[in-house]
Amino acid sequence: MRVMDMKAPIKVYMTKKLLGVKPSTSVQEASRLMMEFDVGSLVVINDDGNVVGFFTKSDIIRRVIVPGLPYDIPVERIMTRNLITANVNTPLGEVLRKMAEHRIKHILIEEEGKIVGIFTLSDLLEASRRRLETAISAE
Amino acid sequence: MRVMDMKAPIKVYMTKKLLGVKPSTSVQEASRLMMEFDVGSLVVINDDGNVVGFFTKSDIIRRVIVPGLPYDIPVERIMTRNLITANVNTPLGEVLRKMAEHRIKHILIEEEGKIVGIFTLSDLLEASRRRLETAISAE
Repeated sequence: MRVMDMKAPIKVYMTKKLLGVKPSTSVQEASRLMMEFDVGSLVVINDDGNVVGFFTKSDIIRRVIVPGLPYDIPVERIMTRNLITANVNTPLGEVLRKMAEHRIKHILIEEEGKIVGIFTLSDLLEASRRRLETAISAE
Repeated sequence: MRVMDMKAPIKVYMTKKLLGVKPSTSVQEASRLMMEFDVGSLVVINDDGNVVGFFTKSDIIRRVIVPGLPYDIPVERIMTRNLITANVNTPLGEVLRKMAEHRIKHILIEEEGKIVGIFTLSDLLEASRRRLETAISAE
């Protein structure tokens, strides 16, 4: 149980399994993908391969179900364009602070301006478990 | 950064802010409540005051949007009846292991057979942050 962990760069804990859809993909199709791949968020990628948006399950519920919009609207209508990111070398502790401050459960990780991964609260659970097991085996 | 934390009973970290709806509440109304109170799950309570079900944002997406059902179906049609719970005195580490094993982000906490709280990955984020701040102030 080392203080080190919180100082380790986020690249140690992030996942590179970043799923992307086109801006024109329907909310229903995107939902199907999220369930199939067991992810809580998707990035939206344009024809040039750039990340132009991001959305979570909360965004679908807030922007589709609550206002009662149809399931076939394109994801570009519900995506967040203002991406909150952290650099790959940012310490875990600082990333957690940023997530808590913005009340977000997923944060995109960038390296030299390119999105290269994502860190989610599920990754935090995984990191906590690994730390726990290390602690137990060291007892 | 004490090993103790993982051994502390979950009641230290759980939240008692448990929001309930009736089995007849519509998915759309439940979604509105989730967004208003910033929670990722709701318990379903019958007229006798017993918890009869539970559902998360994922359940809404998986069981309403993906199959294309209308927003006004009652939550009892999408709720999970088989509740996964942990006792209030279960150590945090064991609860995390159970959550990871079942791949769940929310777990109901019971005391003498009654649901008294919930522990979510957002609570884990909060606990990690508190631990981080303790570690920094001890440096």
